[in-house]
Amino acid sequence: MSRLIDIAVNPKLDLVLERYVDVPREKVWAAWTTPEQIKQWFTPAPWTTTFCELDLRPGGRFHTVMRSPDGQEFNNVGCYLEVAENERLIWTDVLKPGYRPGDGPPADGCCGFMTAIIQLEAHGKGTKYTAIALHRDEDSRKKHEDMGFEEGWGTCLDQMVAMIKRGS
Amino acid sequence: MSRLIDIAVNPKLDLVLERYVDVPREKVWAAWTTPEQIKQWFTPAPWTTTFCELDLRPGGRFHTVMRSPDGQEFNNVGCYLEVAENERLIWTDVLKPGYRPGDGPPADGCCGFMTAIIQLEAHGKGTKYTAIALHRDEDSRKKHEDMGFEEGWGTCLDQMVAMIKRGS
Repeated sequence: MSRLIDIAVNPKLDLVLERYVDVPREKVWAAWTTPEQIKQWFTPAPWTTTFCELDLRPGGRFHTVMRSPDGQEFNNVGCYLEVAENERLIWTDVLKPGYRPGDGPPADGCCGFMTAIIQLEAHGKGTKYTAIALHRDEDSRKKHEDMGFEEGWGTCLDQMVAMIKRGS
Repeated sequence: MSRLIDIAVNPKLDLVLERYVDVPREKVWAAWTTPEQIKQWFTPAPWTTTFCELDLRPGGRFHTVMRSPDGQEFNNVGCYLEVAENERLIWTDVLKPGYRPGDGPPADGCCGFMTAIIQLEAHGKGTKYTAIALHRDEDSRKKHEDMGFEEGWGTCLDQMVAMIKRGS
């Protein structure tokens, strides 16, 4: 009944970051699912993550606040869709927590526009790490690309791997 | 990890139909999850359901086509979010199958606007049946109410119970 579906990626609509990292996937999973860890790596420096609250189950809240170098704060509230330990984490900002429909595509493209998927596969002693952002149309993908998806998500992953290696 | 969250109903935003029906919940579950059965009860007569295809798992497709008495067809495509056999079925038309964000709130309010939850509880030999529609705002709730949520969903439930009692 609840077997996982294949995620259908469409290169015209979606963005994908695929990397091999030399830390075990259990630690990558912990980095994605522990608020105190998320705060350490989730935002590309000099931005910071000042708040993180999560309710790690389908329908649960994924809430972060990011602060820009000049002190502006950005609230991000999403809803988890799948929580498959050490394998796959899916959430969307199109739904609010509890599966309530969100406010629809915003003018500034900042949130309410994507479903994010993190897939982890063991690879030797390390991890094949795949991050996917699904969008509704080419325009949303383009905006996300222009916001710096590849560099942003890549930098955050570097920060995460460094955190894991520090052992904190 | 994957325990069910409580659904937070807000009377200002949501619509709820609660009824006791004298058929067992396993049969109500089958009526909601079998295309050949859905076609028999899903649309208030004289409307008909001419097509039903479903992939019954989180992220899977819930697709129906309804035909009006004068032959107009309406396509409804949603995405399942939770499939808890005999207990709870949740889907939304805010996401397309595979969790892809949909097109946002449409001008006609016809789809892309709600998350639906069917909850079944055993009650003697029958079933306590709760159908909930979650909306993003009061306007969406009002539109859905004006479209005839209570009567429409109630009539469909009567049709479903009649179908189950016929044993088809």
